[in-house]
Amino acid sequence: MANDFSKVHVALGDRAYDIVIGANLDILQFLRKGRSGSSALIVTNEKVGPLYSQNLTESLRKIYDKVLSVVLPDGEVHKNWQTLNIIYDALLENGCDRKTVLFALGGGVVGDMAGFAAASYMRGIPFVQIPTTLLSQVDSSVGGKTAINHPLGKNMIGAFYQPKLVVCDLSLLDSLPLRELRAGLAEIIKYGPIYDIKFFDWLEKFIPQLLARDTTELSYAVRRCCEIKAEVVGKDEQESGLRAILNFGHTFGHAIESGMGYGVWLHGEGVAAGMVMAAELSHRLGLLEESFVRRLRILIERAGLPTKGPILDSEDNAGRYLQLMKIDKKSDMGEIRFVLIDGPGKAVVQGASEALVREVIEACCA
Amino acid sequence: MANDFSKVHVALGDRAYDIVIGANLDILQFLRKGRSGSSALIVTNEKVGPLYSQNLTESLRKIYDKVLSVVLPDGEVHKNWQTLNIIYDALLENGCDRKTVLFALGGGVVGDMAGFAAASYMRGIPFVQIPTTLLSQVDSSVGGKTAINHPLGKNMIGAFYQPKLVVCDLSLLDSLPLRELRAGLAEIIKYGPIYDIKFFDWLEKFIPQLLARDTTELSYAVRRCCEIKAEVVGKDEQESGLRAILNFGHTFGHAIESGMGYGVWLHGEGVAAGMVMAAELSHRLGLLEESFVRRLRILIERAGLPTKGPILDSEDNAGRYLQLMKIDKKSDMGEIRFVLIDGPGKAVVQGASEALVREVIEACCA
Repeated sequence: MANDFSKVHVALGDRAYDIVIGANLDILQFLRKGRSGSSALIVTNEKVGPLYSQNLTESLRKIYDKVLSVVLPDGEVHKNWQTLNIIYDALLENGCDRKTVLFALGGGVVGDMAGFAAASYMRGIPFVQIPTTLLSQVDSSVGGKTAINHPLGKNMIGAFYQPKLVVCDLSLLDSLPLRELRAGLAEIIKYGPIYDIKFFDWLEKFIPQLLARDTTELSYAVRRCCEIKAEVVGKDEQESGLRAILNFGHTFGHAIESGMGYGVWLHGEGVAAGMVMAAELSHRLGLLEESFVRRLRILIERAGLPTKGPILDSEDNAGRYLQLMKIDKKSDMGEIRFVLIDGPGKAVVQGASEALVREVIEACCA
Repeated sequence: MANDFSKVHVALGDRAYDIVIGANLDILQFLRKGRSGSSALIVTNEKVGPLYSQNLTESLRKIYDKVLSVVLPDGEVHKNWQTLNIIYDALLENGCDRKTVLFALGGGVVGDMAGFAAASYMRGIPFVQIPTTLLSQVDSSVGGKTAINHPLGKNMIGAFYQPKLVVCDLSLLDSLPLRELRAGLAEIIKYGPIYDIKFFDWLEKFIPQLLARDTTELSYAVRRCCEIKAEVVGKDEQESGLRAILNFGHTFGHAIESGMGYGVWLHGEGVAAGMVMAAELSHRLGLLEESFVRRLRILIERAGLPTKGPILDSEDNAGRYLQLMKIDKKSDMGEIRFVLIDGPGKAVVQGASEALVREVIEACCA
């Protein structure tokens, strides 16, 4: 018997694709048979590969003549040109051409790198995202942002390049460490304040079930997040406007991640504390009532996530945050643009005075 | 008094742009003023930079607040990741954001690298092509193919990424060495057999004027080539079919370039000998009369270009050509696809038996 799944369509014209969501999914029901002589390359990492790569290989063998795989070192610190080259080398050494399909089996780092490899190998080959973390299921695997880091900045080299299919199999989350599950919840919580306050209400009710990995609630949460993201990306693929709202909490969050050294705080943890800071800033700008900042803080706390930013510099903490935020690529001619909450469920992107931002940082770090 | 120019429009929807062609052009008449705080980065090389970079900088200063430049080492051998990083570093060290405009001032190598840097920096920034060689004016600067080489293959890493504008200033060709002018003529000659036999007739008449760099004839030839290329690219941006005809002579040509070691034969020289070989193959397949192969050979000879391929291996020359052609990215599951002439002015893409290809190589090399 086929397992239940739901489908979210990302409407991007000739780059449109589906996201399928469910448990114990058979990927073959979503793929067409490869052409004679076609091949697949699974890109995974040393953590996830041993768990899921063999099953995927066996499935794909039924529709591709050749199934290869390449195992990358794990972690954001490896999201660089050297690791990207491991993928290029595998493609070239195996004589892969433009009809090779690349499968990204892993979290955000694997997806970002495999995606950029697919975008740039022979100027573009098809790829499929199989996200294995909650964070990548609700965020990074959808929307076509791919990138690697440069020594001078995160995600500085990349492409907008859409996958052909995203498979969110909730069963893959069983092996996810609790800390990473929580980090994923940060990106789920994000969608409430910026877009859908009813979803925020729902989360306040069902956060315990999500933490317990209940498939029914996880399935709903992942689907709702993908729906919102698909809607936003469908309207603004290349982030010329609306799409920026998805970066709620990310301006402060990126400063935390990079200030602490990548990997010390998880991305979702930085975003969690960053959302509280951005909400507090919204409040101090007169856009948002304090009661909602409190609701957000409590939900984040219940998800087991940090609600305060770390001290990045004991001499001038706010100064250090500001310095890090200014080199973020979302800054505009050096002016920092914040995603703020203009009343629950509605986001707005704007600047703020440095003095006010300093106050917020001082109030929200410990 | 403004100088005369002609304009070719590349119709690619929201990626459409113009190619302007003329002598002593004032680039400012084709650009809008940059936003306050905006910047421009000129990417050039050590050969062309000293000749034209200062003039361009002075012009751009009138519309951008900051004009930077970066000088790359010259030559195909430098079309790699290391050189690309010189561009990324310059962008990052100068705090360039998504509104920075990149200007590629040079030949095909500079255009390919600057284009891929623009495609991938912060997932895409605008760029303008100012080709300084005849070859790049009629071919590589138009159509959005960008790439760098990988140690295991030429142009293996890149993107389809369209410029905002292409400025073909024929005055820049005054400094072009004669050998490179001739190499450019190869790509000009190419457009006749595959698409426009009247243009081929015209070339037979005016090749001496082109070799003498007569502006009137150069202007017509560059415009006609850009028109044809724009038409072809407008119908098939990502080379899923028709666009492949632009690779006439390139399958054999790439084998010559890589087999001799990059830089020994110029790209246009490889294409010249390659076109004769592809025409000969077309003839032996019964697609083309021998008289046209002869006409093509004579025109190539009059342009001062090679009509025979080099011996790449004294033991098994045809075997070596075949080996090199099979790893070309245009091969399909290992089967080599040739652009053939199906009667003068019409191209067709198809395979051919290895035995026949061997015969052609043996007949066409010395």
